[in-house]
Amino acid sequence: MTRERLYLFDTTLRDGAQTAGISFSLDDKVAVARMLDALGIDYIEGGYPGANPTDSAFFATDHALKAKMTAFGMTKRAGRSAANDPGLKAVLDARADAYCFVAKSWDYHVEVALGISLVENLDTIRETVRSARVKGEALVDCEHFFDGYKANPDYALSCVQAAYEEGARWVVLCDTNGGTLPEEVEAIVAEVVRHVPGSHLGIHPHNDTGQAVANALAAVRAGARQIQGTLNGLGERCGNADLVSLIPTLKLKPAYAQAFDIGVSDEGLRQLTQISRTLDAILNRQPNRHAPYVGANAFAHKGGIHASAVAKDPRTYEHVAPEAVGNARKLLVSDQAGRSNVLAELKRVGIEVDPKDPRVMRLLEEVKEREANGWAFEGAEASFELLARRMLGGVPRFFDVLSFRVGVERRHNALGELATVSEAVVKVAVDGEVLMSVAEGNGPVNALDLALRKDLGKYQPYIDDLRLTDFRVRILDGGTGAVTSVALESTDSAGEVWTTLGVSSNIIDASFQALEDSITYKFLKAGAPAPRQSA
Amino acid sequence: MTRERLYLFDTTLRDGAQTAGISFSLDDKVAVARMLDALGIDYIEGGYPGANPTDSAFFATDHALKAKMTAFGMTKRAGRSAANDPGLKAVLDARADAYCFVAKSWDYHVEVALGISLVENLDTIRETVRSARVKGEALVDCEHFFDGYKANPDYALSCVQAAYEEGARWVVLCDTNGGTLPEEVEAIVAEVVRHVPGSHLGIHPHNDTGQAVANALAAVRAGARQIQGTLNGLGERCGNADLVSLIPTLKLKPAYAQAFDIGVSDEGLRQLTQISRTLDAILNRQPNRHAPYVGANAFAHKGGIHASAVAKDPRTYEHVAPEAVGNARKLLVSDQAGRSNVLAELKRVGIEVDPKDPRVMRLLEEVKEREANGWAFEGAEASFELLARRMLGGVPRFFDVLSFRVGVERRHNALGELATVSEAVVKVAVDGEVLMSVAEGNGPVNALDLALRKDLGKYQPYIDDLRLTDFRVRILDGGTGAVTSVALESTDSAGEVWTTLGVSSNIIDASFQALEDSITYKFLKAGAPAPRQSA
Repeated sequence: MTRERLYLFDTTLRDGAQTAGISFSLDDKVAVARMLDALGIDYIEGGYPGANPTDSAFFATDHALKAKMTAFGMTKRAGRSAANDPGLKAVLDARADAYCFVAKSWDYHVEVALGISLVENLDTIRETVRSARVKGEALVDCEHFFDGYKANPDYALSCVQAAYEEGARWVVLCDTNGGTLPEEVEAIVAEVVRHVPGSHLGIHPHNDTGQAVANALAAVRAGARQIQGTLNGLGERCGNADLVSLIPTLKLKPAYAQAFDIGVSDEGLRQLTQISRTLDAILNRQPNRHAPYVGANAFAHKGGIHASAVAKDPRTYEHVAPEAVGNARKLLVSDQAGRSNVLAELKRVGIEVDPKDPRVMRLLEEVKEREANGWAFEGAEASFELLARRMLGGVPRFFDVLSFRVGVERRHNALGELATVSEAVVKVAVDGEVLMSVAEGNGPVNALDLALRKDLGKYQPYIDDLRLTDFRVRILDGGTGAVTSVALESTDSAGEVWTTLGVSSNIIDASFQALEDSITYKFLKAGAPAPRQSA
Repeated sequence: MTRERLYLFDTTLRDGAQTAGISFSLDDKVAVARMLDALGIDYIEGGYPGANPTDSAFFATDHALKAKMTAFGMTKRAGRSAANDPGLKAVLDARADAYCFVAKSWDYHVEVALGISLVENLDTIRETVRSARVKGEALVDCEHFFDGYKANPDYALSCVQAAYEEGARWVVLCDTNGGTLPEEVEAIVAEVVRHVPGSHLGIHPHNDTGQAVANALAAVRAGARQIQGTLNGLGERCGNADLVSLIPTLKLKPAYAQAFDIGVSDEGLRQLTQISRTLDAILNRQPNRHAPYVGANAFAHKGGIHASAVAKDPRTYEHVAPEAVGNARKLLVSDQAGRSNVLAELKRVGIEVDPKDPRVMRLLEEVKEREANGWAFEGAEASFELLARRMLGGVPRFFDVLSFRVGVERRHNALGELATVSEAVVKVAVDGEVLMSVAEGNGPVNALDLALRKDLGKYQPYIDDLRLTDFRVRILDGGTGAVTSVALESTDSAGEVWTTLGVSSNIIDASFQALEDSITYKFLKAGAPAPRQSA
């Protein structure tokens, strides 16, 4: 069976740039464009030349990509010729392979928002396409197409036909408000396909009912052959159709993989997780751990029942192989865990144990008990490992904190200004020697951290490269008298990252536990020798 | 046209509890159950009694809700009678109205994972349903139903029929691996409906291809009449079907609203945004600003063309009215847009101001500046109100904190045990009088709170009924040297609840700011007289 070609059009750098709270620098745009090209995307909509300096600069260069670089703009202004429209000129002067113009296709918008006649709007579309074809490929985004079709189907369709007849390579049906349902998209696109061939039709959904991905696929089933979306579903309001969710479905689900051919190769697909995370890093956004296919937890199994089955045969609980998209399986340890989770985790951290060893069940009980009291081991594998080693083998007491004291004081300084100062004193015993250190910090936990790590005697070299990178606090059961759980993330020069926990009704105490465990874990990892004397 | 009843089954507290990185305390479960009940959910799956202490404790009480409290468990173990299965017994002994058992329906799982015959599995289903019906309503979750149906349709169907014939009120078709596509769900459910009435069929999707919501609706279109999902799409891996996305579509989109009646009233729908955010607050999770319907940005429009059009007629750019789900429109970017926001908020808290007053723009600038530095006023209206009053009218300085000092000390006590003690000293000036108080607490913030509120002179009566009910901490930009944002929730005997913020690199300082503002807000609210002397 011959497969039909399905085209992917990415608008991360244009529609995605309209996401609240993010912006792309010129370098960012170039980096993302190259990533998209390496992935195998067919069209890259780089921005709106003339609308802002970054986009204009981006289009001043030919980036020499395999993909078709696409410039976005608005159809020519009413009452002017195409040649006399500076906005249009700026777009057409851009160094691009394709030019995509947004046009009105909802009669209400034409008459009220634009204030022109329905006929004038059609002429505008034709003239714009004609101008674009001189320069390269012409595309037209029919804004509000589905709402427009419901209001006045003949008019909406005539907009599509005008663009197609004038020679547009693609006419894209946009669900601009994002409220159209998949069954409606499928029915309407099927109607349009009776007048304009699907080989020239695209779909541009938005995620306002949580169905942008479903809408894209519904349009494809009805005959459309171009999907417009963004990486990680970026975009205004609730986002655009997420290409990171769509590409694996198109490549791995037989219903689509057997019918369609896309520009993304199997190797490109394996880069997808990395690409998704790189974009988040560029934008300093927290990755969505639950993202389909590429999320850190997309193949993470928590329930005990699930974990034992997936160990036997992954197909029992995984709909596709994580490796296909560059992701990996995870088994989690938590109060939902069963013995299999614990055994898998012990194996992963290199602790040898007989599965029938009764201490395994005791460890599981201890985990469940602690989880009921505020400990959340999942995401804090280093704390789990320390607990496991303590219960199954023993961990050396590298250092013993005899006492600590931390104070925060806000008072007027010599200039009469209110200033807050934090100071911590820590007394530790290291292999029989008692050491005492003081430090000031930004806050009480920072001061304690600095004081604790200032002088650990013979073990000091092992923690010189220890850095704390994240600090998360949860107050359980509300109020200032409640239980506090602190998760501390640390790293070292080897680039390994580990998380340790502390739980107490006292936030300082909780933070201190997490700190102590982080240091102990580092010592274990670095192979620090056990003390000669017990502390 | 008579509408059919469509039932909503929430499994936030069971399947949702399997979300990586979250856990529910007993109090959390009760709070969430009450929220779901107020929303109008028909079935609340509270957990798996016997599987862990929290769930067992939850089911030891009758929570007296309108909804049907549902206990989850596994079908009876093979080779035992129902009476001799302690796991089953633990579930059936729970105080619940309904009992939902997960059963295998994929022949491969029956034979390989369970290691029993296909016939035995059917008997297991029947026996379990029979035992459950003695206690209350019986439900059966057919695990891996869609994969099972594709592998062996007759067997999968026979599992459904076995449950139905034995008297199960609902047989739920689960897309356990989450990889089934909407068109497949629709076709398969339509087939099942030819053998078992849709009035007794439920759908339980997972979001592994980003189409859980679409799958739920596809099943309903094919005849299923129960949807199982979670709030905010919580759940393992990529989550369950998001009821927060589904409910507004069912209530507001004519295709569904005209055909179906659900338990959520219009008033319940208006609570949805609040409910979604409250769950995130309980779990200390960042709300998804891009969530359909309820996200902070779901109705956020860039300024300019959109803003003026949407001001004229919201339908031009909004697919539903934000107020219907308790959300609000946001106008971003342009000064014009921002000003409308601030004016609306001032009006809401009862501050009279001339829209052209230049202080309004200064207030907007101050808000934007603070938001860029860690202040999140949305959700902390009392802090916004105080800021607004300070900039527009003045707020009396009821008390002036001259200095404070808080210490946390961990040392060995007289018994040789390590104990941690927190002590705070606060010096305040109240109407010319200097007062100094000391207090001990569970932790540094608790100690400061008690010391600060111990003696505020003439104003003491106004805060006798002030209670702190929640305390949320966010560390921004990572590490122990980063910016901390604290949100404090307070209440009084009048039952009003308000939230105040504090932001600082020092967590104690941040907490103290939030405390001071909470007390000041309470004085304002209670009409405390301004001091005669300035402090």
